[in-house]
Amino acid sequence: MTLRQVKAAVLLIGDELLSGRTQDVNLRAISKFLGPLGVQVAEARVVSDVPEAIVAAVNDLRARYDYVFSTGGIGPTHDDKTADAMAAAFGVHIGVREDARAILEDHYKGRVHLNESRLRMARIPDGALLIANPVSKAPGFQIGNVFVMAGVPSIVRGMLEDVGHRIEGGAVVKSVTIRGKGVVEGAIAEGLEKLETDAVGAVSFGSYPWFAPGDYGVHLVARSAVPEALVKAAQDLKTLILSAGGTPEEIEEGAP
Amino acid sequence: MTLRQVKAAVLLIGDELLSGRTQDVNLRAISKFLGPLGVQVAEARVVSDVPEAIVAAVNDLRARYDYVFSTGGIGPTHDDKTADAMAAAFGVHIGVREDARAILEDHYKGRVHLNESRLRMARIPDGALLIANPVSKAPGFQIGNVFVMAGVPSIVRGMLEDVGHRIEGGAVVKSVTIRGKGVVEGAIAEGLEKLETDAVGAVSFGSYPWFAPGDYGVHLVARSAVPEALVKAAQDLKTLILSAGGTPEEIEEGAP
Repeated sequence: MTLRQVKAAVLLIGDELLSGRTQDVNLRAISKFLGPLGVQVAEARVVSDVPEAIVAAVNDLRARYDYVFSTGGIGPTHDDKTADAMAAAFGVHIGVREDARAILEDHYKGRVHLNESRLRMARIPDGALLIANPVSKAPGFQIGNVFVMAGVPSIVRGMLEDVGHRIEGGAVVKSVTIRGKGVVEGAIAEGLEKLETDAVGAVSFGSYPWFAPGDYGVHLVARSAVPEALVKAAQDLKTLILSAGGTPEEIEEGAP
Repeated sequence: MTLRQVKAAVLLIGDELLSGRTQDVNLRAISKFLGPLGVQVAEARVVSDVPEAIVAAVNDLRARYDYVFSTGGIGPTHDDKTADAMAAAFGVHIGVREDARAILEDHYKGRVHLNESRLRMARIPDGALLIANPVSKAPGFQIGNVFVMAGVPSIVRGMLEDVGHRIEGGAVVKSVTIRGKGVVEGAIAEGLEKLETDAVGAVSFGSYPWFAPGDYGVHLVARSAVPEALVKAAQDLKTLILSAGGTPEEIEEGAP
């Protein structure tokens, strides 16, 4: 059986993510959205609102991955530089597009003036397809294999709904997580490595310790696109936790 | 007046950050720690537990920035590949080092056996300086301009305390944030761009809208290393919010 792997990169754009002002939550939301579609996020980058940085990152990533998903920098203010940078990266013209202008005109009609700043949000690179924005209407766009979305998390979630049907995914990777309270990594590391070796690429295993005042333990995770392999892996991980003196507990987690 | 700019990159390592399993919080913690030391995080990357990906990222970043801070992948399990990848990136030998082994022996003495897996945490590239781990003892290390830390957030916070004194920072960038409830970006964009132009590089301005059910508005942020410029910028932003029909409110935020 050959399992097709489809890989994506995420490009988070914005000074506020690098300064510590804003906690990014979009990477995780995009990963959790793409996983069930059979797309694995294999790399992510965070760059500032500097056109050259955006151009360099998107050109590197779009050549190496099936899809790229960007967030941030498509609003009406001077620090929103993503749309122009994407046009530059693809070497295409950018200008106010009539379909995008119509969406904004309809949205603002009778309320506020569609001034020059607001019109910036209708600037779309030539050849791009719009991505609907159910929250604040100003659209994102798809150009080639790059999906350009807003930075506000509620808008990202909304835009993803208009992206899913454009994605051709591959094998869906699922996971199981076994929790071992009071178990330390040093006690299960050798056994875990043996499981990884024995699974010869069908399952990958991860180990994630936690430490809190008066509490510690490890989450062991198995990831696979082969359902039967995952069932066996879950059993193996439970046996491993037991052998280290722990009480294994299978827990629900939203993502691999 | 010349202000020395010192820039850093953050390299987050771990499959679990890309799969959506784990929400990263280390980028923001590192940024907030470095800001007051006069170091700005200018780029971040998230890569998987793949040695080639780690090597490529760290070699690119350490050549382009004053400092690099990595998190993740230095534990005792098979998926912890960071220490060996760092040695490969710097082209140096790696092996169990006696000072690191002594820390682990002291920690485990009389409790558990310092087995081969646990000894992996004493593998340190030649020429590296240890970084103390006040939580679970297994050290991080500094090699050249790269600081290699654990992934567990409480350990990262602890390790940063042993990193600060090694950093030579530059100008400290501070910020003010003015909140404008009920104000949309389209109403302040032109005025904000004028402020940015007038400040000719001394102040940079950012605009961050929010949308929630029945609530919306914008946070306007001014960032500068020149205190007097920041005082003026705060006043200018308040005037701008007023001119858009809003009530400006200066709010405390932990980072620029």
